[in-house]
Amino acid sequence: MYAIVMAGGSGTRFWPASRERMPKQFLRITSDRTLFEETLDRIKPLITDEQVYVVVNRLHEETTRKLTQGNVRVMIEPVARNTAPCIGLAAIHIARADENSPIIVLPADHFIRDHERFALKLRAACEAAREGAIVTLGIPPTRPETGYGYVELGEEVGKAKGEAVFEVRKFVEKPDFETAVEYLRGERHLWNSGIFIFTAKTILTEISECLPDLYEGLEEIGEAMGSDRFASVIERVYPRLKSVSIDYGVMENTSAMVRVLSGDFGWSDVGSWQALYELRADKYDEDENLLLSEATAIDAKRNIVYSTTDRAIALLGVEGLVVVDTPDALMVADISRSQDVKKFPEKLKADGRSELS
Amino acid sequence: MYAIVMAGGSGTRFWPASRERMPKQFLRITSDRTLFEETLDRIKPLITDEQVYVVVNRLHEETTRKLTQGNVRVMIEPVARNTAPCIGLAAIHIARADENSPIIVLPADHFIRDHERFALKLRAACEAAREGAIVTLGIPPTRPETGYGYVELGEEVGKAKGEAVFEVRKFVEKPDFETAVEYLRGERHLWNSGIFIFTAKTILTEISECLPDLYEGLEEIGEAMGSDRFASVIERVYPRLKSVSIDYGVMENTSAMVRVLSGDFGWSDVGSWQALYELRADKYDEDENLLLSEATAIDAKRNIVYSTTDRAIALLGVEGLVVVDTPDALMVADISRSQDVKKFPEKLKADGRSELS
Repeated sequence: MYAIVMAGGSGTRFWPASRERMPKQFLRITSDRTLFEETLDRIKPLITDEQVYVVVNRLHEETTRKLTQGNVRVMIEPVARNTAPCIGLAAIHIARADENSPIIVLPADHFIRDHERFALKLRAACEAAREGAIVTLGIPPTRPETGYGYVELGEEVGKAKGEAVFEVRKFVEKPDFETAVEYLRGERHLWNSGIFIFTAKTILTEISECLPDLYEGLEEIGEAMGSDRFASVIERVYPRLKSVSIDYGVMENTSAMVRVLSGDFGWSDVGSWQALYELRADKYDEDENLLLSEATAIDAKRNIVYSTTDRAIALLGVEGLVVVDTPDALMVADISRSQDVKKFPEKLKADGRSELS
Repeated sequence: MYAIVMAGGSGTRFWPASRERMPKQFLRITSDRTLFEETLDRIKPLITDEQVYVVVNRLHEETTRKLTQGNVRVMIEPVARNTAPCIGLAAIHIARADENSPIIVLPADHFIRDHERFALKLRAACEAAREGAIVTLGIPPTRPETGYGYVELGEEVGKAKGEAVFEVRKFVEKPDFETAVEYLRGERHLWNSGIFIFTAKTILTEISECLPDLYEGLEEIGEAMGSDRFASVIERVYPRLKSVSIDYGVMENTSAMVRVLSGDFGWSDVGSWQALYELRADKYDEDENLLLSEATAIDAKRNIVYSTTDRAIALLGVEGLVVVDTPDALMVADISRSQDVKKFPEKLKADGRSELS
């Protein structure tokens, strides 16, 4: 088994803790370890380090190498080109050694509560992938979320490791609210988690069919792998690849077998400060404050505090705030407005203060 | 005319901007100048610099000298001993040169809106003081304040510079709420502003009668003034003086003439972040935020922001907060809880973190 860990996210939703140079996957918000390290920790029991590929943007190479310490393979994207080129790049490399083993594709910035159940589902998915299927784990929705894509369930086609495997009727893009409510009620739609399992052979075949230009570029890069030319070839070819997601570019068009298993292991994409707050009820103080950093709270309830400085933080009589303290920027936000946090880096960038974005 | 500017306050109510070493009078909160400088600015048209005495605690000597640059006399209290010893110390010095000129006693940390009216009232008060009276300026109350002492008006005894001069029936200490409501309705009580006008002769006579031990100590210090012994004498004697306010020690017991004029010049003791917010409506942005430091506000209303760092500050969807940003401490408080801000330095001190108090 192989893994491709996609750590290319840019991360504006956790501003000012997250920055262009410090996206969400490198924050220690769900535990004392970064989301990226947690992702690697979860697959460690399943996959040997040499078969783990981390694909990151050049901006994050240093951080990534510091965290992985040479234990896994790190592939550097010269520029961000969305998930299809990223997956293709690693798959081309894997295919040179092993076309037929399952590859688990994982975003680096998700949270998963039940690691054992997660591992079980991946093992089951690998069985289906060995048969040539593109497999995804779909998350049973708990709210009418309009921010995610969905996977529509087809028939159950069998079991793997005792877990039901379903056909995918289709991948659907982010719905409007009413549709999302219907999906939730209908119980036939799962959230698209962005976790996929397939062999190198399967995915490269599908890329060659659905995205022939991308495939051609990947082949050119693949031919240079292991040679002196590699650096110059990837530098030249990768930026010209079409920036497209694997969902949109392949999943929605593929003629391959597509299968889905229920990702019923407590999943979150940790999409905002509010989502983080809801995840970490285990860490609340007696007033339901989530103090990820030390703070003195007087009559303060249901606040999040996160700091990367050693300043004293004091809260008095406030409720439902996100207080984020960093050496060069401070944010105080109403937690219910967490989705709008990204407006700050956008605005600062527009104002010529890119160093803060 | 002389002035005694009492700059001995410790200042916990503007924490974390104010500290033991940086009390309120040294903050730039009512304008680009410190409250202390504003106090000196206001009396500049009335009194020559050499006749202005600033009395400060040793902790604040450096800051005071930096701000005054040798232009006024600075007297250092080895320890804080409340207002009676502080006034007595300066009065003893002034008396050596001029017993019979009026001395204006002013706290260094008040705000006054109408400087011309303020000057007029002081000139009028000086006339009464020349006749041997202890004169005070009483502030017409605008709310049933329980945090101040009051001055009960007696008969009008005449006019000075066209301004009515009243007898004082008595000084009363901080009332309970019901009494404060009665005072407000009755229109016979004014707030005790802590601003007094008297000659050195008058006040020293009264101190000698009401507080004979204090007078004796002051005399001992006064005898050493101008000699080499001064430093060692004040160091030995001052700490042993009774810590007592001029109000409690003298005003409430004196048999001298006591007069009051109405301080109808827009006064505030700037007693809290909330009081400051209310004072500075002229500086509000379109959402009634008082941004004393630069901040990016999105859908944020009626907040105060004050910073002594150059960090970017971002507010999102919040209302009625006080956000105070300093190099070693950050506070986020509900503005209506401003009176409780002082709990932080108290708590931090109790927790052995005096450096933050």
